[in-house]
Amino acid sequence: MKVRAPPGMRDFYPPDMRIQTWLFDVWRHVSRRFGCEEYEGPIFEYLELYTLKSGDSIVSELFHFADRGARRFAIRPEMTPTLARLVAARAHALPRPIKWFSIPRLCRAEKPQRGRLREFFQWNVDILGVDDVLADAEVIAVAVEFLRQVGLTPGDAVVRISSRPIATAALAALGIAPEHANTAFQLIDRYDKLGAEEFQRRWRELAPQVRADDVLHHLDQSDLERCVELAERTGPAGAAAANQLRRLWERLREFGAGEFCVFDLKVVRGLAYYTGPVFEVTAKRVGLRALAGGGRYDSLTELLDGPRVPGVGFGMGDAPILELLSELGKLPALTESLDVFVIDAGEPYFARALEIVGALRRAGLVCDFSYKRQPIGKQFKQAAERGARYAVIVGAELEERHELTVKNLTAGRQKAVPAEEFLRAPAARLAEV
Amino acid sequence: MKVRAPPGMRDFYPPDMRIQTWLFDVWRHVSRRFGCEEYEGPIFEYLELYTLKSGDSIVSELFHFADRGARRFAIRPEMTPTLARLVAARAHALPRPIKWFSIPRLCRAEKPQRGRLREFFQWNVDILGVDDVLADAEVIAVAVEFLRQVGLTPGDAVVRISSRPIATAALAALGIAPEHANTAFQLIDRYDKLGAEEFQRRWRELAPQVRADDVLHHLDQSDLERCVELAERTGPAGAAAANQLRRLWERLREFGAGEFCVFDLKVVRGLAYYTGPVFEVTAKRVGLRALAGGGRYDSLTELLDGPRVPGVGFGMGDAPILELLSELGKLPALTESLDVFVIDAGEPYFARALEIVGALRRAGLVCDFSYKRQPIGKQFKQAAERGARYAVIVGAELEERHELTVKNLTAGRQKAVPAEEFLRAPAARLAEV
Repeated sequence: MKVRAPPGMRDFYPPDMRIQTWLFDVWRHVSRRFGCEEYEGPIFEYLELYTLKSGDSIVSELFHFADRGARRFAIRPEMTPTLARLVAARAHALPRPIKWFSIPRLCRAEKPQRGRLREFFQWNVDILGVDDVLADAEVIAVAVEFLRQVGLTPGDAVVRISSRPIATAALAALGIAPEHANTAFQLIDRYDKLGAEEFQRRWRELAPQVRADDVLHHLDQSDLERCVELAERTGPAGAAAANQLRRLWERLREFGAGEFCVFDLKVVRGLAYYTGPVFEVTAKRVGLRALAGGGRYDSLTELLDGPRVPGVGFGMGDAPILELLSELGKLPALTESLDVFVIDAGEPYFARALEIVGALRRAGLVCDFSYKRQPIGKQFKQAAERGARYAVIVGAELEERHELTVKNLTAGRQKAVPAEEFLRAPAARLAEV
Repeated sequence: MKVRAPPGMRDFYPPDMRIQTWLFDVWRHVSRRFGCEEYEGPIFEYLELYTLKSGDSIVSELFHFADRGARRFAIRPEMTPTLARLVAARAHALPRPIKWFSIPRLCRAEKPQRGRLREFFQWNVDILGVDDVLADAEVIAVAVEFLRQVGLTPGDAVVRISSRPIATAALAALGIAPEHANTAFQLIDRYDKLGAEEFQRRWRELAPQVRADDVLHHLDQSDLERCVELAERTGPAGAAAANQLRRLWERLREFGAGEFCVFDLKVVRGLAYYTGPVFEVTAKRVGLRALAGGGRYDSLTELLDGPRVPGVGFGMGDAPILELLSELGKLPALTESLDVFVIDAGEPYFARALEIVGALRRAGLVCDFSYKRQPIGKQFKQAAERGARYAVIVGAELEERHELTVKNLTAGRQKAVPAEEFLRAPAARLAEV
């Protein structure tokens, strides 16, 4: 019976896996440069961890199941609830700031269709335990450093930054009450998905007193200074939010991340738990696709009966960034590579060749050989195909003079080397050929 | 509401994650040294992929669920079925030998209890497309190289090797028909789990003509030569199996893996799909615990309607090996480490300090700073706690003489360095202090 891959899930054959490994390595190195440490959690959590934050409506988007004890679980659709659980459980013991990252595998019960994945990997970077926008700036700087690292410029992608309280003030100035702001944000966030007509219809239900076009136009035209001044006039909370956003911009400039950052009130992020600055990393050239999104969430641990631990972070999926890099021709060419390919000069030398292979691997070298007994020429061809830097030929010289022939396949140089001496420090001897 | 971690699942806080990362890195490096390439697959598969191989009885051991299209899936409990699916789908395109490894996350619906994990990671190494025992020897050599790499000796752990056809011949010599051999293997494999009494009872049901004690004694006392000779006398198939096992031993010696390998007929591996040599890596000192297990499976891809692709491989879980290394005091001490901790000599220099932080991170250095404005002494203390190798102090000298003070925290040396020159090549300048 033929069993296919499940719909919306990806198989990673070695060439695909090389790309994943490359991306994950960049994610890890960039995170570590900022002093962030990696954490992980279980692939599934109690179902309540998700309904608690997002309500029962989330259940249809989850892969969920019960165990024999009738406990209900769901495969994690995002990492933030797990992060909140981990931090809430040790809130008093963890030194602040908590600077963490993770590369979780996540699943969402999407309807399987082209380009819509049910499983993906997502880089998460979060700084917790700090109210200062310094943390927001640093988290955004991590995202910017990643963009630079993979060769993207501000012409390729930008970080669009807004702020929940500032946007609330801007909506209020248009006559939309703060208690409707969250619903309005979610609607605005889904504008592209809904289409203009459906958006208009829903907007009329929400706030019939304000024309949808006016709101969109207003959000589009708003610049940082005007919004900040507007918020300042709304009272102390607005003034604090305004001051926060101004300082965020200063910090971003100090970290050298400013050139990638733009103010954009239309970035509202659909999720209800954001409380301060919010942002999205968007590709510029190929339509407006979100590569990453995040913001400040200050009450997530309290939802879990933990003490208040403010936080700010973002998530970046693997698929959109890889697609963008591929379209821009910025994916590295990744091929297999070996340090040494061991070649036997004939069947009688094969056992000795395997001994050399074993010794080189024990010395830490990436080493392989041909499973098929075949002429030297064919073995050399195989060595080249596998990306070997050196070939070591095992033949009559080994028995007659205790020598191996070492060939530098890049430079084309070749040298006879005493076997014993070679095996004492193979990496150093190879470097001499 | 407080939500706990799901039972039998692990959270990995940064100190735990460091251990995981270390182990995974060793697994990756050892695999690559043998010319193996990494692959991955989806976290869940169609349920049939597992029932096909193991029957419906496996379902109760799986976390399974349906999507809205009523397709039935299960979280993967092992990687081999996914591997077989990947290989069967491209059997004609993949160059032989197929030398692959993976570090999948796996789940089994165990009854939650102390020490019984529902989720774990498992290193899988497989060589496919080759009938020659050279592949079996190489796969075992990978496992041996891992043991050496983490500092284990043949006094700590061994690879116990047997062979399905040889063991079948040994049972036949005792009067157990080959068609009962699989059931007998499964029973013998579960001896420790069942206990002596239950084992005796079940054995009497299976083969009343042979005393269970005789079987166990016989398996225990059998040495390689005697078994091989016994198998040779059973006909051409037995002779082939005997020859295979003899050559396996030769190859293991050539690869330099022999000292870790012992022949042990009691290693039968419960799974029905093994067709040739089987083996287990067992810790010697602390009871007899299986660290890894594997063997040759030659008809797995045919189950999936693919062409015949013989294979041999093993799986090693993360938990038992980490526990063993911890008990033996062989886990490395892994702490956080930074290249540079940037210290400000007072609030007025903080913005400049952040600029330096940004520049150092852009230069690829692992760099952090104190979120709290506090005296220099406290910042130095923090630098030491975070494992920083260097401190860079930003103070009045920067404005007065365009200089930074760089301190080597290991050597205790300190030097004033022109800021511009430093930032042009910080790694090189640090190395000079």
